[in-house]
Amino acid sequence: MKRFTVYALEWFPLVKPGDNVADIIVETSEKNGLKFEDYDVVVVAQKVFSKAERRVFGLREVVPSKKAERLSKITGKDPRFVELVLGESKKVLKASSEILLVEDKRGLICINAGIDKSNVEGSENFALLPEFPDRSARDCRLNIKSLTGKEVAVVVCDTYSRPFRRGQVNFAIGVSGLGLFKDYRGKTDLFGQMLKVKNVAIVDEISAAAELLMGQGSEATPVVIIRGLKDSLKCEDCGVDELRVSEDEDLFRGVL
Amino acid sequence: MKRFTVYALEWFPLVKPGDNVADIIVETSEKNGLKFEDYDVVVVAQKVFSKAERRVFGLREVVPSKKAERLSKITGKDPRFVELVLGESKKVLKASSEILLVEDKRGLICINAGIDKSNVEGSENFALLPEFPDRSARDCRLNIKSLTGKEVAVVVCDTYSRPFRRGQVNFAIGVSGLGLFKDYRGKTDLFGQMLKVKNVAIVDEISAAAELLMGQGSEATPVVIIRGLKDSLKCEDCGVDELRVSEDEDLFRGVL
Repeated sequence: MKRFTVYALEWFPLVKPGDNVADIIVETSEKNGLKFEDYDVVVVAQKVFSKAERRVFGLREVVPSKKAERLSKITGKDPRFVELVLGESKKVLKASSEILLVEDKRGLICINAGIDKSNVEGSENFALLPEFPDRSARDCRLNIKSLTGKEVAVVVCDTYSRPFRRGQVNFAIGVSGLGLFKDYRGKTDLFGQMLKVKNVAIVDEISAAAELLMGQGSEATPVVIIRGLKDSLKCEDCGVDELRVSEDEDLFRGVL
Repeated sequence: MKRFTVYALEWFPLVKPGDNVADIIVETSEKNGLKFEDYDVVVVAQKVFSKAERRVFGLREVVPSKKAERLSKITGKDPRFVELVLGESKKVLKASSEILLVEDKRGLICINAGIDKSNVEGSENFALLPEFPDRSARDCRLNIKSLTGKEVAVVVCDTYSRPFRRGQVNFAIGVSGLGLFKDYRGKTDLFGQMLKVKNVAIVDEISAAAELLMGQGSEATPVVIIRGLKDSLKCEDCGVDELRVSEDEDLFRGVL
């Protein structure tokens, strides 16, 4: 039977500013009795990189702009928090009493530019997304390779709210060493008929699978290893840019 | 280490109208050497139920309405295909040369009301979604229980395009025996801080994980078993209605 297994690394320590994420992952995998193999996919919650890369900011350090003050009134959020969001954003897509939705400077469409405070110490401290998640993934992958000799892929993920459906799911915000899609277009089905549309974002499905063991609270399992996905394409220079659709391209434009 | 494993049932036969899906799943699992256990989650591509439940229609049987003729001109799709879509829909959300997006009669927001022809025999034949996917899941779960004595959960899934991100992912359209969400609201994080928003749609993440082995072409592995998710809540009467957000509730309204 085709199969794959998803493992959560237990006893993952709290990450401190300046930590080398790959070092911690390899040490913790050893404690767990797991030896890396080629084709393993290492899925890492973005907050691990966020903390290691000194992306945690306290509201005390922030002086809100006029725009932040104005959006603060609309959203009911602390103007200093709004300022953090604006600093990470290209464009505000929606500001209301319920939501502050932006296109962030990485091109991700996300609530509060992905900034949040869960699992961040200090009542006024917030974690920003890693500055360049593909680069975080790449550095981590190359470091794991030099530590273990194994060719793994690394995916950086975060939970996303989405239109039309209740609740959040984990999607990818950074990737290295893995093709993002399984593209069926031009291939044939069981009856030899050509598939025209199917282009599955497996990197998002991998992120979703990993979340089932990560948890979002006090689980302390922010790193998950997926073993057995050898079909997934190796890709040296793939990045999450490929997931982006411009406003003009978005099939759903005009709907909401 | 916490872990779960995802298995694809190989040698799954072509499903014929009137087939009992649970019988086929149990027979095929035996051929694969897999014995069901309590807490197994059985993820089934919707087309399996669609075919068994005689939901495949030929365009020859369809007489298009005036509305279908009109939308056919806008979308470039066969008016009889559009008629099939309208018959499954409550409301057309968008019709353009690129997309026919509807709220289907089940309340799902989906392209072409989920109707497609991949892995359906006959050049003019199309598979409609199962009429009541929760009921399909429930019947299948209870039949598996009576055949094997095991308390499994069943998820019916389909691939979805989504706003903002390229490519499709697998999401749930029917469920039985499994809680849909892992709700962290009111729980605490590593530092004892309360989580306010996180409510993860694990049923969608389970569907996404399963897709990694299902494939969309000629793989012939439309049924996947996930073993090891014992944390997932058992739920006798949960259904996909819980995933629906009304237009008013949708945080993203006004954005696209």
